[in-house]
Amino acid sequence: MSSSKIRVAVLGATGVAGQQFLVALDGHPSFEVVRVGASERSAGKRLGEALRDASGRSAWTCREPLAAAHAALPVEDAAGMSADGVDLVFAAVESDAARELEPRFAEKVPVISTASAWRYEPDVPVFLPAVNLGAPGAADHTRLIDVQRRRRGWKGFITPGPNCTTTGMAITLKPLHDAFGLEKVLMTSLQAVSGAGRSPGVAALDIVDNVVPFISKEEEKVEKETKKILGLLDGEGIAPAPIGVSCTCTRVNVLEGHTEAVFCSFGRMGTLDEAKAAMRAFGRDFLALGLPSAPPTLIDVLDDPYRPQPRLDRDAGNGMTTVVGRLREETTLGGAWGLKYVLVSHNTKMGAAKGAVLVGEYLLSRGYVK
Amino acid sequence: MSSSKIRVAVLGATGVAGQQFLVALDGHPSFEVVRVGASERSAGKRLGEALRDASGRSAWTCREPLAAAHAALPVEDAAGMSADGVDLVFAAVESDAARELEPRFAEKVPVISTASAWRYEPDVPVFLPAVNLGAPGAADHTRLIDVQRRRRGWKGFITPGPNCTTTGMAITLKPLHDAFGLEKVLMTSLQAVSGAGRSPGVAALDIVDNVVPFISKEEEKVEKETKKILGLLDGEGIAPAPIGVSCTCTRVNVLEGHTEAVFCSFGRMGTLDEAKAAMRAFGRDFLALGLPSAPPTLIDVLDDPYRPQPRLDRDAGNGMTTVVGRLREETTLGGAWGLKYVLVSHNTKMGAAKGAVLVGEYLLSRGYVK
Amino acid sequence: MSSSKIRVAVLGATGVAGQQFLVALDGHPSFEVVRVGASERSAGKRLGEALRDASGRSAWTCREPLAAAHAALPVEDAAGMSADGVDLVFAAVESDAARELEPRFAEKVPVISTASAWRYEPDVPVFLPAVNLGAPGAADHTRLIDVQRRRRGWKGFITPGPNCTTTGMAITLKPLHDAFGLEKVLMTSLQAVSGAGRSPGVAALDIVDNVVPFISKEEEKVEKETKKILGLLDGEGIAPAPIGVSCTCTRVNVLEGHTEAVFCSFGRMGTLDEAKAAMRAFGRDFLALGLPSAPPTLIDVLDDPYRPQPRLDRDAGNGMTTVVGRLREETTLGGAWGLKYVLVSHNTKMGAAKGAVLVGEYLLSRGYVK
Amino acid sequence: MSSSKIRVAVLGATGVAGQQFLVALDGHPSFEVVRVGASERSAGKRLGEALRDASGRSAWTCREPLAAAHAALPVEDAAGMSADGVDLVFAAVESDAARELEPRFAEKVPVISTASAWRYEPDVPVFLPAVNLGAPGAADHTRLIDVQRRRRGWKGFITPGPNCTTTGMAITLKPLHDAFGLEKVLMTSLQAVSGAGRSPGVAALDIVDNVVPFISKEEEKVEKETKKILGLLDGEGIAPAPIGVSCTCTRVNVLEGHTEAVFCSFGRMGTLDEAKAAMRAFGRDFLALGLPSAPPTLIDVLDDPYRPQPRLDRDAGNGMTTVVGRLREETTLGGAWGLKYVLVSHNTKMGAAKGAVLVGEYLLSRGYVK
Repeated sequence: MSSSKIRVAVLGATGVAGQQFLVALDGHPSFEVVRVGASERSAGKRLGEALRDASGRSAWTCREPLAAAHAALPVEDAAGMSADGVDLVFAAVESDAARELEPRFAEKVPVISTASAWRYEPDVPVFLPAVNLGAPGAADHTRLIDVQRRRRGWKGFITPGPNCTTTGMAITLKPLHDAFGLEKVLMTSLQAVSGAGRSPGVAALDIVDNVVPFISKEEEKVEKETKKILGLLDGEGIAPAPIGVSCTCTRVNVLEGHTEAVFCSFGRMGTLDEAKAAMRAFGRDFLALGLPSAPPTLIDVLDDPYRPQPRLDRDAGNGMTTVVGRLREETTLGGAWGLKYVLVSHNTKMGAAKGAVLVGEYLLSRGYVK
Repeated sequence: MSSSKIRVAVLGATGVAGQQFLVALDGHPSFEVVRVGASERSAGKRLGEALRDASGRSAWTCREPLAAAHAALPVEDAAGMSADGVDLVFAAVESDAARELEPRFAEKVPVISTASAWRYEPDVPVFLPAVNLGAPGAADHTRLIDVQRRRRGWKGFITPGPNCTTTGMAITLKPLHDAFGLEKVLMTSLQAVSGAGRSPGVAALDIVDNVVPFISKEEEKVEKETKKILGLLDGEGIAPAPIGVSCTCTRVNVLEGHTEAVFCSFGRMGTLDEAKAAMRAFGRDFLALGLPSAPPTLIDVLDDPYRPQPRLDRDAGNGMTTVVGRLREETTLGGAWGLKYVLVSHNTKMGAAKGAVLVGEYLLSRGYVK
Repeated sequence: MSSSKIRVAVLGATGVAGQQFLVALDGHPSFEVVRVGASERSAGKRLGEALRDASGRSAWTCREPLAAAHAALPVEDAAGMSADGVDLVFAAVESDAARELEPRFAEKVPVISTASAWRYEPDVPVFLPAVNLGAPGAADHTRLIDVQRRRRGWKGFITPGPNCTTTGMAITLKPLHDAFGLEKVLMTSLQAVSGAGRSPGVAALDIVDNVVPFISKEEEKVEKETKKILGLLDGEGIAPAPIGVSCTCTRVNVLEGHTEAVFCSFGRMGTLDEAKAAMRAFGRDFLALGLPSAPPTLIDVLDDPYRPQPRLDRDAGNGMTTVVGRLREETTLGGAWGLKYVLVSHNTKMGAAKGAVLVGEYLLSRGYVK
Repeated sequence: MSSSKIRVAVLGATGVAGQQFLVALDGHPSFEVVRVGASERSAGKRLGEALRDASGRSAWTCREPLAAAHAALPVEDAAGMSADGVDLVFAAVESDAARELEPRFAEKVPVISTASAWRYEPDVPVFLPAVNLGAPGAADHTRLIDVQRRRRGWKGFITPGPNCTTTGMAITLKPLHDAFGLEKVLMTSLQAVSGAGRSPGVAALDIVDNVVPFISKEEEKVEKETKKILGLLDGEGIAPAPIGVSCTCTRVNVLEGHTEAVFCSFGRMGTLDEAKAAMRAFGRDFLALGLPSAPPTLIDVLDDPYRPQPRLDRDAGNGMTTVVGRLREETTLGGAWGLKYVLVSHNTKMGAAKGAVLVGEYLLSRGYVK
């Protein structure tokens, strides 16, 4: 631990997403967790204790262990917490809490969030690495940070990541959009239970031997966010990408890793080989920055027709690589050309905390975090 | 048991689909199982014994018990079995075996099958109750039986049912097609493991905490069969419905009941209420026949946004009702109007053996079986 | 509905166990649900509405539907509810609530409960049909009702059923105890998730691809209740059976049906055939009463070594028959003789509400309910 | 790769256990896989191809990838394979094949096996690291190798590892036996599906929402092997430990990691703290050898009552540490003192291939492999 590291606060540290932040930040070369916030109930305890109930039961849900340094941190009541001694906030609180808490911190320091509360504000970028962050030209939304700060008079800013279901779809569509001009996308998701957290989360009684065909507000988020993320900077805002997006989001009996079946059409002709090549090459410039949480490749394309599978592919690139398979031509949807494919994206790694940490690393490299 | 019942042989009686035939025929008012065929390995044993291995382990997979009368039947080697003393054959054998076996029986008696072997022959109807069997006008394919008999010189005939994944989609699309003129349909299936049988079937090691995004040959079947089933009689064959069909078929960790997320577009405008009404009213004339295996309704439409769920809805109408939910307007796909919805269909009841028994009941009522 | 039926109130009607009461009482020949109580939150709504949240999602968890007559009942706040117009109460509330609520009703009418709150009071019998209710001699605990009434000055009484994990073990041990003199029993349970209810219940994140080796307070309950239930009336109380009981209770990824691996030793020699015969014959006199919820047999013994399995055997006797298999001699435990076996018992039928209804039916036949 | 490494052949390389050998040997500092054998069907292909079927589907089941160097090895027909150029054989073939194949190799080189075929021969040690291999005094069975070689006239030898269910129980019992004198042990296992391999393995249709209470021959193996492994060298053989062992083995819906509920009694008094300390200290001398596949601790004892859980604890010590929890005193079983506890052991790591590799490493350090 060195005083030269960026001093980080994690809000919502006891929840599933907050725990993933702690794992993503354990031993991080640039970031050091110095304060943790949670609900009033946990305040005053050490984090290690707060994650253990009266019976000794642990609320820790990650495969990786809780770092001793993190376990020893005193938990603060997030509602009353200040930004003192903090350079950067990673926030993993519920949307209602985020609505209130995040601006309070953003007055002073950058807030990188997994909550949806601020995603749809015109001056708030929804960063997805290499897609609209560290991307060429008007596709890069970084400049919106300056707009936001100026308009709101904040020293810091808020940048939420996309919904975990948007993440894999937007990453895989971006190189196709650049190459062939995306027009329409229809998607059915088969989402993991970890996305819903643990208390209450998805009850076993609801999902064992079952599928739940509805996730409240999820489809609207995916449709709206995809257009925004693939949109272009336009004056002081973002012009949403002029594409049609429609989806059905379901929950399946999988612990981690969202699977999505995508059908899409384009304005220009292409070939399967070109599409594969575009996906495989995606984000090379971004990856060349060598950021600590970046995977070797952003998209892997597999030829085994039985892949991707969430259990086998969610951990690709330590959960930061989106894995694509079953790439086929799609002729029914119309347009000049079309594709259908299946993707697997790790919903609590790239799709949540670790993706947010990668955003933080990029913003650090660009001087937005310091 | 009465000699006035139709004497039935069940082929493939030891497999999952064959067992479902036995359950569907147990205590049937019109059909009586008098002979059962299976592989050479089982031949010579009583069916009850053939379903029990050396260790005493039962290979019976249905929730309902094996009827004592069926357990006592001697198993014959299907490969060498004759049609003597049999009025009707229900066949549940693998496709390769069906290719050879079914015509041998069809020379003498009707064969109603769950195998895909003969589905794509021009003179072979793929019956789906109320959709193209007992339907009005040229949508009814029954007449093809006569064509088939004449062309092939058979006293009997072969009528395979559709693939279990086609079933729910074609049933729900039919009333929409009639009302609004179907143009395009894109579908992602989340299929149960029982569709793959038991030996080997889907290994737990492949599906627990997982999704498998590919089922060999399934998508081609669904695309081809849907057009054929929704097509119209045209001279001595069927003119496939002029619709675009595209799908991605996946396997999920569900025991029984296929879930399908459907997006479709139409040539004519409609309303959600009209669509619901059309689905709910579907097949009233067919149901009015009062056939023993017919459910009270062919399609149920639920308003609870969390439904249909395979575990809760697969047994609707004793597995013979397709349950629809999440009906929403779909604007991305194009056309004059569009819909998206989710359906659950019982893959081993309506989608296999019991659906075939209902076909048999209809053909009996029309004199094709006697 | 007839005024000659016993008028029943169900407390905790919106929970999993309460719903099971409603299912067990739907169309019951002797009992009619006339009032339902739940938490304050549900009070004032019709039960059908109370079981549906703002989004239209149903909280109903049973495979059987909610009866229309029950759906129409107004939900009362159980905390303030009276016993007016009620002849009998079935209570399915949490233990803390039961501690307070049940005596208030018991002052006026009989209360048959699934809660543990009153199980360990000396004057409170824990009835298990045919084991200590309708059993011969001092093994029958019915007389304790009179003791309880007299001591407490109540017109009614409280009789809780045993814990769902005790149920199957005590039922299967009883005929063995009678025949061979039980001395020791060691048991490991593999319990279904439905026992924990739904909100929160067991989270999928905790049980998918997993076993949880601890269920709070469960082992103590099983050990204590087994001795009490197998005990003999002794003056104004029960002398616990002089047996050693030890168990480890685990939760597995099963929806319904507890599986238990039992090892036991006896004071007298016996044979496997005698043990099977004793189990199969168990409760004949009780069953001869023809009570509506009683199954054809209380214990089934299977010879297939791969049985019992919870998914295949939990519904035996409509969930009221305990299914035993893998009966083998056990020599390690000591004693004159020993056995080991596996049982499956339906935890939300015989092990909860429906078992309580059967107790109610017996008490009605004996005049304790009227 | 260096010629100074021990040249290893892996038999049964395409199966689940064989794949685990390849993973355990990938990048190994002392062992190098130079030949791989499998069934005739795979012979002649490169291993990478043999693990891929006609449709491109991979039969690889491990989370870790197949090493490129292993993928490139030509698969030989194990039935006709020689020991040329091989210093050591790791065998993961079915028991019938092992009966024939293993002696053929053992004539020339050491064979370390996961099959049961030779486990019960008097001159064949069943090694479990630190329990009877590298243990003090007559508890160490290494000397039996010399007996075996002399009697059979082999240059090599056969040492099978124990059944995967024996492993965790014998490891945890050993320090208790040394400290308190084990007399009786009763155990119920909740076993993972990976133990049954993949083709056919356990069908999803058999295990989803279910428990299977029988695993053919498993209980006999565990009972016999535990006595042998905990026994003492006695002249040219092993005197089985004079303990009573009884168990019930079940299969649960878990991918990897066997859970076992153990009840045991001892000849001497002890305390819970002594028992914990003995388990935690177990194998320190063995671990001090610093063998490459050895974990930091052989047994972890957890105080969280909800642990161990297979999903959370199977990977402890990279699958080589047995995790114990729920340690309680046991008074029912008799003896001077008793304990009950739950353990989780990784059935395809310590319980199979990787455990066998650790045996190989120890035998290398002692000069039995060279």
